[in-house]
Amino acid sequence: MDIRFVKLYDTYAALLSDRQRDIMELYYNEDESLSEIAENTGITRQGVRDHIKKTEAQLEGYEKALKLTERTEKLTEMLKRISEAIEKEDTELAQSIIKQAEAIL
Amino acid sequence: MDIRFVKLYDTYAALLSDRQRDIMELYYNEDESLSEIAENTGITRQGVRDHIKKTEAQLEGYEKALKLTERTEKLTEMLKRISEAIEKEDTELAQSIIKQAEAIL
Repeated sequence: MDIRFVKLYDTYAALLSDRQRDIMELYYNEDESLSEIAENTGITRQGVRDHIKKTEAQLEGYEKALKLTERTEKLTEMLKRISEAIEKEDTELAQSIIKQAEAIL
Repeated sequence: MDIRFVKLYDTYAALLSDRQRDIMELYYNEDESLSEIAENTGITRQGVRDHIKKTEAQLEGYEKALKLTERTEKLTEMLKRISEAIEKEDTELAQSIIKQAEAIL
């Protein structure tokens, strides 16, 4: 399992259908194998595999369109750097990073 | 036209189809009337109206799911308050707002 998809799932799960979420929960959060999910949902193993691939492509589409996880990571990093600049009493640097953060919101 | 939908459109336009974007651009950004859009696209006026209503409902669905514009507004406000706290040399307040901002990322 690719950790990148878990992040995308956490970010965009609300845009998926209930059915998609049910299967992705088993895969990402319950860590079930394709065979286990097939058994628990009554889909064939190949069907589960196709479903997951399709949903992951959809998640990638959302990220390509909105770049939400990328932006969240950047903002997290910026907040950390603002905090460090304040600690070092470098007010000018802190204000400059705040301006950069505002620009990507 | 509702300014709220313009904001939602700016945020989620990338999730719409080309066709949806074409029509919403005329409506939101070119400020064309339903009749003008109907004339320019060859759809009936009622068809344009339905299309816009449907797309606006979709935009609202995205916001309900992701709350991106709400979160962006909150973060903008927080960055402003961090900046003001730094100016007043209230380091403790600034760090406390940074922690709050990190929590909603």
